[in-house]
Amino acid sequence: MDGSDEGSARPLTIAAVAKAAGVSVPTVSRVLNGEADVSAETRARIEAVIRAGGYRRQERDYHASLIELVFHELIGPWAIPTIRGVEQVATDHEMSVVLSELRGRHSPRDDWVQHVLARRPAGVISVFCQLSAAQRRQLGARNIAVVVIDPTERPAAATPAVAAANRQGGATATDHLLALGHRRIAMINGPARIWCCQEREAGFRDAMAAAGVAIDPHLVRYGNLHVDEGQRIGAELLALPEPPTAIFAGNDLQAMGVYQAARAARVRIPEDLSVVGFDDVPVAGWMGPALTTVRQPLTDMGVAAAGMLLTLAGGAAPVPPRVELPTTLVLRGSTTPLP
Amino acid sequence: MDGSDEGSARPLTIAAVAKAAGVSVPTVSRVLNGEADVSAETRARIEAVIRAGGYRRQERDYHASLIELVFHELIGPWAIPTIRGVEQVATDHEMSVVLSELRGRHSPRDDWVQHVLARRPAGVISVFCQLSAAQRRQLGARNIAVVVIDPTERPAAATPAVAAANRQGGATATDHLLALGHRRIAMINGPARIWCCQEREAGFRDAMAAAGVAIDPHLVRYGNLHVDEGQRIGAELLALPEPPTAIFAGNDLQAMGVYQAARAARVRIPEDLSVVGFDDVPVAGWMGPALTTVRQPLTDMGVAAAGMLLTLAGGAAPVPPRVELPTTLVLRGSTTPLP
Repeated sequence: MDGSDEGSARPLTIAAVAKAAGVSVPTVSRVLNGEADVSAETRARIEAVIRAGGYRRQERDYHASLIELVFHELIGPWAIPTIRGVEQVATDHEMSVVLSELRGRHSPRDDWVQHVLARRPAGVISVFCQLSAAQRRQLGARNIAVVVIDPTERPAAATPAVAAANRQGGATATDHLLALGHRRIAMINGPARIWCCQEREAGFRDAMAAAGVAIDPHLVRYGNLHVDEGQRIGAELLALPEPPTAIFAGNDLQAMGVYQAARAARVRIPEDLSVVGFDDVPVAGWMGPALTTVRQPLTDMGVAAAGMLLTLAGGAAPVPPRVELPTTLVLRGSTTPLP
Repeated sequence: MDGSDEGSARPLTIAAVAKAAGVSVPTVSRVLNGEADVSAETRARIEAVIRAGGYRRQERDYHASLIELVFHELIGPWAIPTIRGVEQVATDHEMSVVLSELRGRHSPRDDWVQHVLARRPAGVISVFCQLSAAQRRQLGARNIAVVVIDPTERPAAATPAVAAANRQGGATATDHLLALGHRRIAMINGPARIWCCQEREAGFRDAMAAAGVAIDPHLVRYGNLHVDEGQRIGAELLALPEPPTAIFAGNDLQAMGVYQAARAARVRIPEDLSVVGFDDVPVAGWMGPALTTVRQPLTDMGVAAAGMLLTLAGGAAPVPPRVELPTTLVLRGSTTPLP
C-alpha cells in the first residue's frame, strides 16, 4: 500500500496466490477467468489473497481494449446518445465497447458478472443499474474499474458516478412555469425509489416553495418513465374537477403520453395546457408542438464516464469521483403564459 | 475439401503456413492477429495459403464468444430494436456483442477491420453498411463469418443477408392510399443509391401501375432519411400549385418531418393530407395523429442475422443464405379516405 516495501509492491504470481490461499493453480486460474465451478468459500479466499497481494496479469492483454457498457434496459431514446458518447472515447483510444442489457433488471445477475470476468475488460460502465457490493468486489479484485451513469440510488461518496443535475433541472423547469404565471402545476414523476426522480421532484418542490406556491398533493403522481404511463396519469389529471394548467413530466416519453391524453380530451397544448419534459431526446423537437424540456447531456455523460473509466483503468483515481453535468432548459412551443 | 484425404482435412499449423508462404512464423502471426505492419503483398500471400490450407486456430478460443455488430450510424430509432435482437441471441448462447459505429460512413475503414481481427470474434453483423471485397477476404481467411442486415447495395447471391420485404411494403402502403381514393400520391424517398429505397420506390411504382394511375414526376422526391429532410421536401410538396392529397414517406422520421411541414402550412393530417411512413419505430404510435406505417420487423431481423451468424460460425452454410422478412401495414390515424 505505502510502496516502501518493494516486495509487497511486486504483483503476486498465480502460483503465489494459490500457495497463500491453499488451493491449486488451476483453481486460481478458474477464479481469475470467471469460471463458475469454484465454491463461494474458495472463491472468497482467493479473492482476499488477490486483493491483499496485488496480483496483476503478466501477459500482454488486449482484452483490456474492451469497455463493458451495461444498460438496465436497452430501450428508449436515452440509450443511443449514451452509447455514442462511450463509443467516441473508446474509438479515440482504439478500444471497443461490449454492450449488454439486463432486460429491465436494476442489478445484474451473477452469471453476467462471470461473463464479464471472462472477458477481462478495462472496466464496466453501468447505466441506470446497480452492481451489488459482492459484484463490485469481484470486479475490483481483478482491477476492473466500475463507473455508474445515472445511478438508481444515491451513490456512496467514493463511487465513481456521472449524473445530470437533476435537482437543478427540476427547479429550472418549475421556475419557467411559475414565471409564465402558472400556479396549478402538476408533476408526473417516475418511480419514487429512483434517485434521479427523487432529485427532480426535490427541484420541483424547491422552486414551488421559493415562489411561495402551495403544492396540491393530488397534482403529484408517479408512474414508469414510459409513454403509456404519461398518457394514463395525464388523462387522470385532465379529468380532475380543477385540472392543472401546466404539467412537468418526469421525462420526454411521459410528456408524449400527456400529449396523447390532451389530444383525447380535446385540450390544446400550449393554449390550454403547458407541458415541460425532461431529457431532450430527439423526438422532443419533432413533436407538435415541439416540447419545452430540460436537456440532459446524455452524450457528454457517456464521454465523461468513459473518461473516468480510462483514468481508473490507468491506475489513478479520477478527481472528482463524482461528476454532475449541468442540465439546461430548452424553450420550444409547449409552454405559454397563463391567460 | 472432399474429406477423403485426411492430410488435406487437417488444418495447417502456423509453421506450415509460414513455410508455404515463404515468410517467418512471426509474420504469419502478425497477419493472424490483424496487426498492421505487414505489406499488402505479403499479407495477400499468407491469406491465400490460409484459405487454401484451412488453417484453424488450435487454442481454446473464448474470443469466439464475441459477435461484432457494426452500424453505419448509431442514430435513429432503428438501432435499438436491431441491437436487442442480436443481444437476445447472443445472451441465449452466452456470447456478447461488441458494438461499433462508422459515424455515417457506408463502409468500414481498414483500421476497423484490423481491430476486429485482433478481437477474433465468431462473426460480424453489419447493418446498413458494406464491407469491401478485400475486407471480406481478410475476415473470411480467419473464419470470421459476415452477415449483412439491410444491405445498402443489392447483395451478391451468396452473401448471407437479412432484409425486410421493402418492395412489398412499398406496394402495400401505396395500395392502401389508392384504396382510400387517393390519386395524387407523392413519394418522399431516401437516397436513390440505397437498395432498400430503390425497392420501396419499385413497390410504389408497381402499385400505381397496377391501379392504372400515372405518377406525376414532380411528386417523387429524394432526401436523407431524417426528419429535417422530410420537413423540407414536405413543405415543397405542400407548396405546389396542385399539392398531393397523400404522401408516402421513405421512413417514419421523414413522416415526422412531413407532420411539421403540414403543421407550419396549416394542413391537417389526416383531413387534408394522408401520410404513410415506413419502419414502425416506437414514435410512430405516439405521434398526433398516430402514424399509419409499414412495419419492418427490426428485432426479428437482428435475431435472424445472429442466428445465421451462429450457423456460419459453426461451419455450416445457412439455408437460405438470404432472408427477407415480411413487412406489414399498421393502420393508425394518419390516413383517411379522400373526401
